Amino acid sequence: MKKVFFDKIGIIGVGLIGASFALAVRERKLAGEIWGYSLSGKSSQRALELGILDRKVDDLAIIAQECGLIVVSTPVLTIPGILAELAAHVKRETIVTDGGSVKSFVYDAHKLFHHKNFIGGHPIAGTEKSGPDAGFSSLFDGSCCILTPFRDTDEGKLEKTRDIWEAVGMNVVAMSPEEHDSVMANISHMPHAIAFSLVNSVRGKTVSGNKITTLAGGGFRDFTRIARSDVVMWSDIFISNSKNIISSLEDFEESLRRLKRIIADGEKSEITDYLEETRLVLVNNSKK
Amino acid sequence: MKKVFFDKIGIIGVGLIGASFALAVRERKLAGEIWGYSLSGKSSQRALELGILDRKVDDLAIIAQECGLIVVSTPVLTIPGILAELAAHVKRETIVTDGGSVKSFVYDAHKLFHHKNFIGGHPIAGTEKSGPDAGFSSLFDGSCCILTPFRDTDEGKLEKTRDIWEAVGMNVVAMSPEEHDSVMANISHMPHAIAFSLVNSVRGKTVSGNKITTLAGGGFRDFTRIARSDVVMWSDIFISNSKNIISSLEDFEESLRRLKRIIADGEKSEITDYLEETRLVLVNNSKK
Repeated sequence: MKKVFFDKIGIIGVGLIGASFALAVRERKLAGEIWGYSLSGKSSQRALELGILDRKVDDLAIIAQECGLIVVSTPVLTIPGILAELAAHVKRETIVTDGGSVKSFVYDAHKLFHHKNFIGGHPIAGTEKSGPDAGFSSLFDGSCCILTPFRDTDEGKLEKTRDIWEAVGMNVVAMSPEEHDSVMANISHMPHAIAFSLVNSVRGKTVSGNKITTLAGGGFRDFTRIARSDVVMWSDIFISNSKNIISSLEDFEESLRRLKRIIADGEKSEITDYLEETRLVLVNNSKK
Repeated sequence: MKKVFFDKIGIIGVGLIGASFALAVRERKLAGEIWGYSLSGKSSQRALELGILDRKVDDLAIIAQECGLIVVSTPVLTIPGILAELAAHVKRETIVTDGGSVKSFVYDAHKLFHHKNFIGGHPIAGTEKSGPDAGFSSLFDGSCCILTPFRDTDEGKLEKTRDIWEAVGMNVVAMSPEEHDSVMANISHMPHAIAFSLVNSVRGKTVSGNKITTLAGGGFRDFTRIARSDVVMWSDIFISNSKNIISSLEDFEESLRRLKRIIADGEKSEITDYLEETRLVLVNNSKK
């Protein structure tokens, strides 16, 4: 692994991702100082108190002028505005990257920066918790980080961005923004939409006067974990990637209709075939 | 907690549930001996080798004649046949209970036993793993066990069945078989059907030549865990509880259609309202 170090790293949005990144950087001594900014000033204040940040900054321009690497990890709809402000102040060598779960905005973002400072990114990591208190340094260990460079992206800046994510434990892969948004719709955004809908669909259902969910076993519990995810983060994702999500949901609805029809038919061999076919999706996968 | 002890406990079907029950009973010294029978003889042999059973029995009649408590934990479509065979041999005081995830068969089962030996049960516990090697003594800790007694059920036998499940760590509740099957469709069978369909819906999808699932983050991973569940167990459940499952799936499809429409509309406040409404299902629940 390549050695990577920045005198100052700036983190915009010190939630689960931002705080965990700061902790991972700190643990591995990848920065001299870690500065942070948050939209309301609350999470950067909290992160400062927790010792996650070295300095709380309330002016984006200062972060832009002083930090060699800036990671924007705020809800996805707020990222373009933040990038526009950073673009007005960054130095030639500054690297700006982000953790947004949808990458449709990166075309405009790329054009904003005169020195090709911006590298779109997405560390695929998270829990159902949010805020700086939820951060932990091993969040990224072994997970995948997607970068979305362009043909004319600055190679040196791309390299360093890759290095820092690898240094905190991630496997970095590159793909186009469109590919990213389509893949993420399938493996993350659609599953979340389904989990929200599933929990929503049992609201008001009771058993012996108690909510049905008081009896929930393992299967349901996994869905409820997801359904506790941050509301602002997820509404931003649903809005930003709506076309891909709806298309993935339509594929899912077709698979579900097929299973429903097979269950209604009651032919055991048809059901086991469907379930085996499903297992195969995973079995072949883990061989890779 | 009431003290409960059986000289011999018989376990029919020594998979995840049967083996875990045996280990929990052993750890808590709730039986003199634990005997086991399995449909193919393989899992009882393996459980004997693992020290989970004291004796492997290949004749159901012997279990029926010798054991004071018999727990049937085989795939649900096989349970009625096993109960019929046990019913022909059990003694007056023998308690027969089961772990079937669907309880529609218990009316017939109840009538089979001349001494009201049968108490329908369902410990709501499990993992995606199966077989005796997957068993562990704390599987039932803190989870819910549903019993489905009738008006003329033997009170003493019901009491002892409740005691043994409580002794291995479960919270026991009673409800009617219909109520059980409807609740389980909502909190377990429907979520599993959805997880299978979701994984099924991304089959064949690739990114840069790799299966899409190689990139899967937390959200998808929860679903794939479920989708690895035992195929025979789940096809039996889908067949036995098809009407309730289809009805729950229809409620879910309606919730999903609503979310899809809201996502397509792109009104942030509508999406956050939907997500907040969903969180509320869980928040109020955990207060109970």
